[in-house]
This record gives sequence, structure tokens and C-alpha cells, in this order.
Amino acid sequence: MSETLAVPDGWKSVASPPSLFKRYEFASYAHTREFLDRLGLLSEETRLYPDLGFGKTYVNVTLRGNGSNLPSHPEIEYAGRANTMAVAGVP
Amino acid sequence: MSETLAVPDGWKSVASPPSLFKRYEFASYAHTREFLDRLGLLSEETRLYPDLGFGKTYVNVTLRGNGSNLPSHPEIEYAGRANTMAVAGVP
Repeated sequence: MSETLAVPDGWKSVASPPSLFKRYEFASYAHTREFLDRLGLLSEETRLYPDLGFGKTYVNVTLRGNGSNLPSHPEIEYAGRANTMAVAGVP
Repeated sequence: MSETLAVPDGWKSVASPPSLFKRYEFASYAHTREFLDRLGLLSEETRLYPDLGFGKTYVNVTLRGNGSNLPSHPEIEYAGRANTMAVAGVP
């Protein structure tokens, strides 16, 4: 039986390829850039590099599991910390 | 007769939606981030905000025309300057 992990708020589990996805929307380009900068630092710390798509006021984040594995604890933690960063606002 | 504009090296003209597209690949995440930072400054200067997709070592750039217009001089200029930024390397 596979383990079931709770995904952080707003994240969706995608079947193919196995991944977690969330779209973030922001009020301005400054907010979008700030969030991207924070994600960049988080990636360097965790060595997890999601696929990111963004425009002026949105960021789409796709977190794949390692190799062909399902997303697991590291990706779940990244997702949770991304949520915290998204609400932190522009300094 | 519509005007024909030469697109900068490596850029492709996409018919639907009317846009210019290029994929850049980099040797490392540091190069990728540096390029993204430069594109961010270019967007703030030109007020052109392409759709960007990126991962650890690539950046996909999609430049749409204004509204339903074809990409024109502003987008062509952005594309050319992006090429220059991509080869500038990490400081």
C-alpha cells in the first residue's frame, strides 16, 4: 500500500508525469519577482528545481518527484514553504 | 502588404497566437538565474513582459504582440537584447 501524503493548500497532485502543481497570482510584477527570487533561494537550499512558468502577475510551479518517483517529503516541504513565501509580500 | 521584420538569431515566429519564441539553455542554475534577472530588468525598462518558462538550466521565452497585433519593433528589440544578455555570462 502506498503512503498518502497531505499536500499543502492549493497544490494539486498530477498523475502524469507524477508531480505537484500550483498557480500563484500576484497583484504586481514586483510581487511576482519577489516570489521568484525567494523560490530561487529555496531551490539552492533544497536542491529541488521545479519547472516554473511565469508572466507579469502569475507563477506556475510544477514539482516532480525524483526520477520516476512520486513527489514525496522533500517536494511536500518545498510546496509548503513556497506557500509561506507567497503570502509574505514585498519587503 | 504586411511588413516583414527580420527576427534575431534563434527566435522563431509562431502563428497562433502571434508571437516570437526562443529556448535558451545554460550550463548551470547560476547562469539561468543571471539571465532571468537581466530579463527582469529589461522588462521593467521596456514594459514588455514575455511569458517565461524555466527550469534549472533552460529558459523558454514567448513574446506576444500587443493585444492581437503581430510582434513588431518593440518585441524584435527585446528579442535582440535578450540574445546579447544570454551570451554575457555570469559576472
